[in-house]
Amino acid sequence: VLVRKLTTIPSADIRMSYLYPWDGVVHTPFGSAWGVVAPGQTSRHHMHHEAETFFIARGRGLVTSNGEAREVDSETVIYFPPFTTHTLTNLSDTEDLLFLTVWWEDPALHRSRLGVGDGAAATVPETSAIPAAPRSRQRTLVITAPLTPNGDLHLGHLSGPYLGADIYTRYLRLRHVEANHATGADDYQSYVVFNADRTGSTPAQVAAHHAEEVRASFRAAEIAYDQFLRAEESQHYAKVMTNLVRRLVEAGHAEVQEAPCPYCEHCERFLFEAYVSGTCPHCGEGTGGSMCEGCGRPNEGFDLIDPVCNRCRRPPVLRPLPRLFFPMARHAEALREHLARASMPTRLRALCERILADGLPTIALSRIADGGWGIPVPVPGLEDQVLTTWFELGPAMMVQAELLGESHGWRAEDRDILSGDLRVVNFFGFDNSFFYALLVPALFLAAWPDRLPPATFVSNEFYRLDGLKFSTSRNHAIWVGEYLSRTPPDLVRFYLCLTRPEREQTSFTESEFRETVRRELGLWQTWLHQLGGRLRRSFDGIAQEPGFWTPEQRDFYRELQVTVEEVAQAYEPETFSLRRAARLLCEMVRRAYDFGNGEVHWETVERRRNELRTSLALELAAARALSLLAAPILPRFSTELWRGLGNETSLQENGWEEVPAWVPPNTRIDLDREYFAFPG
Amino acid sequence: VLVRKLTTIPSADIRMSYLYPWDGVVHTPFGSAWGVVAPGQTSRHHMHHEAETFFIARGRGLVTSNGEAREVDSETVIYFPPFTTHTLTNLSDTEDLLFLTVWWEDPALHRSRLGVGDGAAATVPETSAIPAAPRSRQRTLVITAPLTPNGDLHLGHLSGPYLGADIYTRYLRLRHVEANHATGADDYQSYVVFNADRTGSTPAQVAAHHAEEVRASFRAAEIAYDQFLRAEESQHYAKVMTNLVRRLVEAGHAEVQEAPCPYCEHCERFLFEAYVSGTCPHCGEGTGGSMCEGCGRPNEGFDLIDPVCNRCRRPPVLRPLPRLFFPMARHAEALREHLARASMPTRLRALCERILADGLPTIALSRIADGGWGIPVPVPGLEDQVLTTWFELGPAMMVQAELLGESHGWRAEDRDILSGDLRVVNFFGFDNSFFYALLVPALFLAAWPDRLPPATFVSNEFYRLDGLKFSTSRNHAIWVGEYLSRTPPDLVRFYLCLTRPEREQTSFTESEFRETVRRELGLWQTWLHQLGGRLRRSFDGIAQEPGFWTPEQRDFYRELQVTVEEVAQAYEPETFSLRRAARLLCEMVRRAYDFGNGEVHWETVERRRNELRTSLALELAAARALSLLAAPILPRFSTELWRGLGNETSLQENGWEEVPAWVPPNTRIDLDREYFAFPG
Repeated sequence: VLVRKLTTIPSADIRMSYLYPWDGVVHTPFGSAWGVVAPGQTSRHHMHHEAETFFIARGRGLVTSNGEAREVDSETVIYFPPFTTHTLTNLSDTEDLLFLTVWWEDPALHRSRLGVGDGAAATVPETSAIPAAPRSRQRTLVITAPLTPNGDLHLGHLSGPYLGADIYTRYLRLRHVEANHATGADDYQSYVVFNADRTGSTPAQVAAHHAEEVRASFRAAEIAYDQFLRAEESQHYAKVMTNLVRRLVEAGHAEVQEAPCPYCEHCERFLFEAYVSGTCPHCGEGTGGSMCEGCGRPNEGFDLIDPVCNRCRRPPVLRPLPRLFFPMARHAEALREHLARASMPTRLRALCERILADGLPTIALSRIADGGWGIPVPVPGLEDQVLTTWFELGPAMMVQAELLGESHGWRAEDRDILSGDLRVVNFFGFDNSFFYALLVPALFLAAWPDRLPPATFVSNEFYRLDGLKFSTSRNHAIWVGEYLSRTPPDLVRFYLCLTRPEREQTSFTESEFRETVRRELGLWQTWLHQLGGRLRRSFDGIAQEPGFWTPEQRDFYRELQVTVEEVAQAYEPETFSLRRAARLLCEMVRRAYDFGNGEVHWETVERRRNELRTSLALELAAARALSLLAAPILPRFSTELWRGLGNETSLQENGWEEVPAWVPPNTRIDLDREYFAFPG
Repeated sequence: VLVRKLTTIPSADIRMSYLYPWDGVVHTPFGSAWGVVAPGQTSRHHMHHEAETFFIARGRGLVTSNGEAREVDSETVIYFPPFTTHTLTNLSDTEDLLFLTVWWEDPALHRSRLGVGDGAAATVPETSAIPAAPRSRQRTLVITAPLTPNGDLHLGHLSGPYLGADIYTRYLRLRHVEANHATGADDYQSYVVFNADRTGSTPAQVAAHHAEEVRASFRAAEIAYDQFLRAEESQHYAKVMTNLVRRLVEAGHAEVQEAPCPYCEHCERFLFEAYVSGTCPHCGEGTGGSMCEGCGRPNEGFDLIDPVCNRCRRPPVLRPLPRLFFPMARHAEALREHLARASMPTRLRALCERILADGLPTIALSRIADGGWGIPVPVPGLEDQVLTTWFELGPAMMVQAELLGESHGWRAEDRDILSGDLRVVNFFGFDNSFFYALLVPALFLAAWPDRLPPATFVSNEFYRLDGLKFSTSRNHAIWVGEYLSRTPPDLVRFYLCLTRPEREQTSFTESEFRETVRRELGLWQTWLHQLGGRLRRSFDGIAQEPGFWTPEQRDFYRELQVTVEEVAQAYEPETFSLRRAARLLCEMVRRAYDFGNGEVHWETVERRRNELRTSLALELAAARALSLLAAPILPRFSTELWRGLGNETSLQENGWEEVPAWVPPNTRIDLDREYFAFPG
């Protein structure tokens, strides 16, 4: 008999003593362990690919799994199918909860791995034991990070939140989900003041001018939005901000503290945000005040290494200054819970958890006003200060919902972004990570502890130009307004999708852009023209009902179904990837092009008109699917194609099709269009 | 009440009177018709995406569906699920069989199309209502068209049957299916004689020299074969040929006929095959004797338009010549049945059906011998003649099976290519279509009416070089031996797959080759190096067990599963597409590369080691899957990668994995290799 002493290791907020497999002794087809949850504690949300069962040996607990909660004790047995998230809470305040857990891989996985060479025809394994996650059909408010109105929009900006949100909103609407895209300009950014300061105009003039420029750029790039919020233009704006500050102060969550602040003795002013730069105390890269673009972590100005005044390039001194501060640390637990149910890219989640592990900072919510530009802080003693624009982010979302609700006639409860009923999806660049994923929810949770802050985040990395950072000052940039006035938006949108900086920095190169769109979209056009020609030759350009099927046709249809599902998955925010969506569309067309080149030969066999009908019906179904699947990315192309397919109702009215549908028989088809005007 | 007179139209070998939907009156959600099968007749094999039911109103029939046969009459109801092939035979010799048929689309298709916008979370529809076709696990003999040993092998040859068969055989072996690739040289081709004639050597010398050259080229390109058959070297060869001729003659299926034959009065010889060219009587393109490369149809020499002697370029006259002929027309019915169960690309099937519809030709099986080169015709009066090499094709397959059986110790019945137990898969270029798909089965069916000739055909179109036809005479060619001596075979094989002329003529371009392999395979290498680096940084290069999972990880795993299945489908002969297989592999790597770029950030969060383990385990599973999936195409790369993943058993021994498997935990991983040496 073999006996060993158990070692206990902490795992997912509980103590685990692993039993089997027993290294060097026996390799069991299951794993098992004793687990202990301390009084009042909860194991961390997690899921895994193994099935798992719990046997409670001692104590009483609460199991939650995929949203459902059940009390459990030693008389219950608990089973978790693969990929269900679960937690176990110890309901006792005094006693440990002790449980035995056993987990194992689905034996079907093993069987299917062995199912070869048995001499007979083998059946193909069921597609994906793993179902795709369910998809939200809630009313959705898509919010993009407000643009700082101190310059024009370049391709780098466009490739990130704005294209992403526009495409996502178009996708939801195709699915007949009520979705709105709200964006805007953060007029009160210190960069606007800094710009006005340098150019000798007023912040209001700078903001108004550039906000208009941005709107024109959005139009040129066909970035649709339902609301463009400017603080300066909104009656709600200041009210909502002030209300939140008051709640925080009253609850003791925001307080006036005196803290050191960089002060430039030459310019005779405190330096915030746009006015100061230095070395990031966290990652050692160069950074501006407030937020490091490199590592995504905030700074407080005074903690910058080798700070310098951005006006006179001289080093500042530190002077004490009372400001309104928000100590985030006390909301750590609430934030952890919030993050557990939130959806976000891995880099963002990792950043949040790292900051949580290091300890949450205390964040200044106010700064000295420049000429009264900004929202005054409604706190005695800070009459000379305004709220920071980072503070504005959260309440600005409330304003967005309120204004949209007004114009759409929504009921009051439907305008509430903390209700969980109105789904808010935030699109922003990585440099906004801390604010959207930690500061905004922390402020909301502090003010309204039982509410549900927005929890769906789609962030992106930086886009480069010819391998270098876009730079307004060095004019190393491609300006959206100018560029899109001579390049069709579909082409640019498509290429930005293909090269979008989703998980790493990527780069735009003009020559590669031209070559890629010509190669990829050129094939789309060729295929559609050939399909139109074939249909004209055999059936006077009239769509046919499918007739008899060949195995090759069946396989094409099967692949088409898979593609529709995969593209949908790439548009969902939890797995949002326009790179993948665009690539899947290209592969779909390549496949259809190859298919058509084979099927064309049915034309030569009189007896096989039935199969010819099927192949043309399938190609038309693929063209129809392409029109729908590509619509969020290439709206002009899709509308043209949709019309060419003889549809009377609009593409939007028809809506998304989960399963590729037939083009109705007897429809007159006209695919002979120039879908794309290639540059150069 | 509305009444109309039914009109009867022939469809799939039966008479149909369509009832519903009734145009202009009512659009029913089902279709229906009266059908009549005449005495002794059978409806044509077909399948469709609708479900269907038959009610027999009068008569008695035999229903076959997916290989199963059942007697049916008015007391039975017959249901065909979507995509089942079926026929109905009237068992009576005198009475019509009358039946009512009703068909409808699966309503689930409609429901899923409507399942949008219902305000709640919608579940994702089940992937593909259409299952992939079952896959054969039978012992398989892969046979490639014999090469004419009158010149070296160029990339055009390689891209077609030889690369296809090599990759397919490797795939089957990975699945632990017993598979052999048999190829060879058709020594007795008239082109060999013509070549010897011109160069002043003997046919035997020409054949031996070029056969050796071809084998060296195969080695250079890593085209593996288990047998290289040369008529000259085989003891069985002549015996099997002679045996088949005797059977045909005895059964009255082959007979001596006198027919006009082109005769060159200047060269004083009858002109066959290599010796004559002219205009194809079917398509009007230029062609050699016997077979038109343009339209795939045979000619008989005498029917060429404007024929010319290939030696002296003078027009021949026609002279009567007795030869052995095979009238194919009487085997039309048997061939139709054979084709119904055969698998082949659409262009090939269309060609077969067109020839069947036009009437099958009578084909000469013998020609005048040149210096005794060839198999003598064992028929009195034809002592000066030999068998045509096209006749040799079928019996040569028997020789291949016999010889392989001998060396592998197979039982006699396992060496029988007509038994249906040994699966024969033929790979050939489009110009061989008529012979493989019609002549060979017709000869077999004539000699052994109840046997099953090979019925799985993978044909390809022509490959071009810089847009023009490969041409030995103009030296517009890339020679395999020379080219592969300075370019790694993996790169060439990969690019030939991506651009393979599967359904249309495609073209090789050196610059595009270099650019494409560098872009695509360069990313494979980058991803693997990054993965190795990440694993080293976090776990000393040791593979980990998956821990807790995030939704993004689950989705990656799901996509990986789908990819494995799609690649398998692309390797199956019924849906064979190396273009698609290669593209799927590239997309898999792009997806893994993006995934890795996101997941790397778990490194920075101590609390998330569990998720970091999962992401690395998933990337390693993807690398393992890549190694297996790519093995048939890039054998060197796959072996390198497989080793780098720390496997002790060989890739072949391990075999295909239907579901991506984990790299065993605690394995030491080393991915830091130069997998590809890019040219230029």
